Amino acid sequence: MTAAMTPKSFGSDNHSGTHPAIMRAIADANVGDAVAYGADPWTQRATTELKRLAGAEGEVYLVLNGSGANVLGLGLLLGRHEAVICAESAHINTDECGAPERILGTKLLTVPAPGGKLTPELIAGRLIGRGDEHFAQPGVVAITQSTEVGTCYSLAELRKIRDFCSANGLRIYLDGARLANAAAYLGCTLAELAEHADVLSFGGTKNGALGAEALIVMRPGDAANAPYLRKQHMQLSSKMRYLAAQFIALLEDDLWLKNAMHANSMAARLAAGLAEIPGVEVVYPVEADAVFARLDRSHIAELQREWTFHVWDEAASVVRWMTAFDTQESDVDAFLASIAKVVSAGPA
Amino acid sequence: MTAAMTPKSFGSDNHSGTHPAIMRAIADANVGDAVAYGADPWTQRATTELKRLAGAEGEVYLVLNGSGANVLGLGLLLGRHEAVICAESAHINTDECGAPERILGTKLLTVPAPGGKLTPELIAGRLIGRGDEHFAQPGVVAITQSTEVGTCYSLAELRKIRDFCSANGLRIYLDGARLANAAAYLGCTLAELAEHADVLSFGGTKNGALGAEALIVMRPGDAANAPYLRKQHMQLSSKMRYLAAQFIALLEDDLWLKNAMHANSMAARLAAGLAEIPGVEVVYPVEADAVFARLDRSHIAELQREWTFHVWDEAASVVRWMTAFDTQESDVDAFLASIAKVVSAGPA
Amino acid sequence: MTAAMTPKSFGSDNHSGTHPAIMRAIADANVGDAVAYGADPWTQRATTELKRLAGAEGEVYLVLNGSGANVLGLGLLLGRHEAVICAESAHINTDECGAPERILGTKLLTVPAPGGKLTPELIAGRLIGRGDEHFAQPGVVAITQSTEVGTCYSLAELRKIRDFCSANGLRIYLDGARLANAAAYLGCTLAELAEHADVLSFGGTKNGALGAEALIVMRPGDAANAPYLRKQHMQLSSKMRYLAAQFIALLEDDLWLKNAMHANSMAARLAAGLAEIPGVEVVYPVEADAVFARLDRSHIAELQREWTFHVWDEAASVVRWMTAFDTQESDVDAFLASIAKVVSAGPA
Amino acid sequence: MTAAMTPKSFGSDNHSGTHPAIMRAIADANVGDAVAYGADPWTQRATTELKRLAGAEGEVYLVLNGSGANVLGLGLLLGRHEAVICAESAHINTDECGAPERILGTKLLTVPAPGGKLTPELIAGRLIGRGDEHFAQPGVVAITQSTEVGTCYSLAELRKIRDFCSANGLRIYLDGARLANAAAYLGCTLAELAEHADVLSFGGTKNGALGAEALIVMRPGDAANAPYLRKQHMQLSSKMRYLAAQFIALLEDDLWLKNAMHANSMAARLAAGLAEIPGVEVVYPVEADAVFARLDRSHIAELQREWTFHVWDEAASVVRWMTAFDTQESDVDAFLASIAKVVSAGPA
Repeated sequence: MTAAMTPKSFGSDNHSGTHPAIMRAIADANVGDAVAYGADPWTQRATTELKRLAGAEGEVYLVLNGSGANVLGLGLLLGRHEAVICAESAHINTDECGAPERILGTKLLTVPAPGGKLTPELIAGRLIGRGDEHFAQPGVVAITQSTEVGTCYSLAELRKIRDFCSANGLRIYLDGARLANAAAYLGCTLAELAEHADVLSFGGTKNGALGAEALIVMRPGDAANAPYLRKQHMQLSSKMRYLAAQFIALLEDDLWLKNAMHANSMAARLAAGLAEIPGVEVVYPVEADAVFARLDRSHIAELQREWTFHVWDEAASVVRWMTAFDTQESDVDAFLASIAKVVSAGPA
Repeated sequence: MTAAMTPKSFGSDNHSGTHPAIMRAIADANVGDAVAYGADPWTQRATTELKRLAGAEGEVYLVLNGSGANVLGLGLLLGRHEAVICAESAHINTDECGAPERILGTKLLTVPAPGGKLTPELIAGRLIGRGDEHFAQPGVVAITQSTEVGTCYSLAELRKIRDFCSANGLRIYLDGARLANAAAYLGCTLAELAEHADVLSFGGTKNGALGAEALIVMRPGDAANAPYLRKQHMQLSSKMRYLAAQFIALLEDDLWLKNAMHANSMAARLAAGLAEIPGVEVVYPVEADAVFARLDRSHIAELQREWTFHVWDEAASVVRWMTAFDTQESDVDAFLASIAKVVSAGPA
Repeated sequence: MTAAMTPKSFGSDNHSGTHPAIMRAIADANVGDAVAYGADPWTQRATTELKRLAGAEGEVYLVLNGSGANVLGLGLLLGRHEAVICAESAHINTDECGAPERILGTKLLTVPAPGGKLTPELIAGRLIGRGDEHFAQPGVVAITQSTEVGTCYSLAELRKIRDFCSANGLRIYLDGARLANAAAYLGCTLAELAEHADVLSFGGTKNGALGAEALIVMRPGDAANAPYLRKQHMQLSSKMRYLAAQFIALLEDDLWLKNAMHANSMAARLAAGLAEIPGVEVVYPVEADAVFARLDRSHIAELQREWTFHVWDEAASVVRWMTAFDTQESDVDAFLASIAKVVSAGPA
Repeated sequence: MTAAMTPKSFGSDNHSGTHPAIMRAIADANVGDAVAYGADPWTQRATTELKRLAGAEGEVYLVLNGSGANVLGLGLLLGRHEAVICAESAHINTDECGAPERILGTKLLTVPAPGGKLTPELIAGRLIGRGDEHFAQPGVVAITQSTEVGTCYSLAELRKIRDFCSANGLRIYLDGARLANAAAYLGCTLAELAEHADVLSFGGTKNGALGAEALIVMRPGDAANAPYLRKQHMQLSSKMRYLAAQFIALLEDDLWLKNAMHANSMAARLAAGLAEIPGVEVVYPVEADAVFARLDRSHIAELQREWTFHVWDEAASVVRWMTAFDTQESDVDAFLASIAKVVSAGPA
């Protein structure tokens, strides 16, 4: 069976396959028996290294996908009756079919957040009615780093949120499906990001893994229920060594960071090229592996004949173009050439 | 990193690694881009073949693990208020940390079932109070094939349950984590098993896959909500091609059946050998890849120094010994020799 | 023990006590034994009369409070994976502490709705992503009649919503905690309102009852699970006759309508008086038993020293003044006099 | 409308109406306005007195019915992932249509309990697999006092359970739907019972109230979430004063205790009379307001022509006869006469 798509997809960082080193690590783990459910040396090594990298005093739990990480992560922090404050654009709000509500029974208190980022002020606006039993009671603030629109919170922005939340009895969950891209952009360590959250996910899948996410619990007290909830949430892998092997490969020689830096640089190259093309407007700062652009509806349709990508906002005529660890300069250049050609042809 | 266990584990069929052909298929799928979440040619092929093999008119959904398959499968059949009838020994009752209750909000109405098998009579005993709003209302009967104690329902037994359920307005979910072993034992097709269920899982992981399960919905009407519930249940894989590739490999040249036949034959070899060893009593018919045996408590402890396996019932001094697709005759013989030696030494 | 508040509260229609005729009916039902949980002649009579009044072919279920009616009503219509479209101002979204999410696991897809009313256009704007498993899938539209801001959908407006929903595979739940006030305003029958919903509540508590709500299921097919879900939702009253007696009294000589007409007329009197007071702006059409007014922050504080009422929107300096079945003309006039006096004194 | 049943029902203590003093208290509370949802002087007084009576340092929450009290009470004590240990015969297991599972997502780990009573030994048998993520993790032990079969835990038995649970990290929920009957039987205070639980319900409805239950949280730490969960569980009454008034009446001059003593004495009279009737076997100690008796199937049918009561166990031919606060000696004597007559006639 051959690949599904030529040319290179700009549709999503999960349209890519698996980084060869990660695939090799999976194959290498295929030796003999290993106790199931994580009591194996690969898992021991991966979680130990991840803990160290994140500066976590709690525990690390490998899970099967991003929704699993998000719902479990929120669940570890939420009181039974509590609600979540998040950006309207948050993946947990827009892209998980209502999984947090279904699985946790929680309410998402959404805030329109320019550039996909919450601020203390935006969070404060959702604190009305605390202590009044008629109002949903926020207990957790969920942020995404890098955000769903390809921006990154600066460390200073994260610190402000962290301080505000501490002062207001709110816990922080950080959706890090693309955390590596933020570290690459900010030039910081994983620990410098992680310290601003109580629980965070560290995404492997969008960064070259076959399918693996890590949930990092920063403090031991929040981890007590995690093994049971991971099982109840159907996120406990039996042959865990294969999840672990992926992270071992990602951590070796900072492959996680190199993959993210590469993807980011491809997005930057794309954005730079777009700056030369009249009729295409980049609508968010390009700080990770995504470029959001506004262009003529007819041009979008024309481009989609040949290239794979999503329309982000039908009404606003905004598209999302994603790069990945395996996007090549030549892919970007070919895409830019196509865009230039289509746009220069004028409206259909 | 080297293998975790020597010698061969008899602890579980998921202590084994991945069958080489399946690992190869995963690596072969690592070519270029593919649309995420199942809109790829691998998934198309795997689900089409699985539908055909099961004789399903509905749909097939690939999911991430066995708990995911079980909870989603029950969820497709259960009315919002309904309960599940199952054997007390059912995996969904004993081994999933209460996941069905947590995720579905359903009640499990359990029945002590000798040999792990339900019968129309046992099911009937749990139908008290139907139509009375104070009583939990059973809507689904859950059976496991092969069962948790290594036995298999005959086709005649399945038919009786099917007929009883049809006559009584009950739907059937079949937990087929080890369905291949049942087909191997019964010498029947997958379709002959599947036709007795409304929804069933077909396990890959315990049969040589890296980690993949298929949920087979027999009739289109039961599949309408499945894509949304799979997403909400955090069972939708983004790089789905890698789940699909595992099933493609399992279906090629009936690898699924060969693996199961081999595992079954190793269990049979073990049981045959045990028959020669006084002081070890096999407590359930050996019809799949499991042998349950009663032996002296001190002998169990002695054996566990060298061999990996679980004590099934502490009080009854019964252990579970599992074989797998990669168990060798020499593994079984070595294990038998150890058992014979330990047992012949007399109580500690 | 004496009454908690003098003078008359304008804080809520549930600050009022119980209408004397309803209290009498409760006392009259206190004769001898009655089978529990609704198998009594009072319940038989109340539900039969309510069915007739609403023109329902399904069933009527008496429940304990408004939250109970709303959550149960939504639950009868929602598929296990489905979401609810409602106005941002809907009581189920703002005032039930997240009960629908907690109990049903559903997501509320909210729409800013001017005047508290949904329209086909507003609903349509929330239908993005239907058929895409990543998006929450709306299955039910929830409307409130009369609305949370004291307005009423006209029958024509309801018909448009009904037609749009029918054409788009959406069910309608109508929160009728103040349905009587809408019937009074529109001069229509209960059946003319009910025919636009699939399931609706008919509120007793805010209309003079001690505490009783009716859930009306218009078609038999939607009622099949209701008795079980009512029990699971902890809304099944054991001494049901006392709930039923309240509705019997409300239906006798159209007390329900008279109470609502009276409350509405008191709100109209209040609004008329306010029109004479400069510095007080009525911000929504006064069509039921509520008046929403904007006035100076300092005047609000001054008035609250003597009178009981809620600030609706702190930021906008808008208050809510509710009337009830037992509000007297003299209460309204005294309140108006106070308002006029406070406002005329100028800002503090 | 006239009473539904003559003669006196022995079907349930909730077939009775409302004690006249309680009905009077409700009518007396019908004076003027009161702030809704419990911020009224009646609620203040009732909860303060209940706290004192139970020796609680936490809080008291009035709720709408017994299922509501049970599910809320369990929810206050359960971690998100935890399970409940209870007797197989527990009301929460057999009579609430699976409400705890539906609303809390918890699993009930049931134990066959002779005489309806748990013991440390029985609880210990359900602690297998603690700390293993595959097993449901018990966090709460639920007991019923007086039990579903009319027996009472002695204070010594309660203390043993309490000590065992403390030593094993288990919390205790006590279903006190008939707690008054236990206090009456044991001759102890409410506080002497309450001190053995973390959270308990104190039932009004089965003891002469119109419909009101109190949930008593013994320690402040367990009460933090209660107001929000009560609202989410749809158990927050708007015109709360009417629930409170019922408890005020019950507590005045120990009406709660007098009612229970009377009901108990009527059950004792019934049991004493039955001892004289050959062919009727009382199967549980009669310690509260219930008599369970085995008699010939045909005699049961014959008696049910004239008298209202439930068959408890069809297979065992055991019936349940309940007395109530308003059962008269003459009712018991008439019933005994009927039983004697039917039984003496011999099998049909």
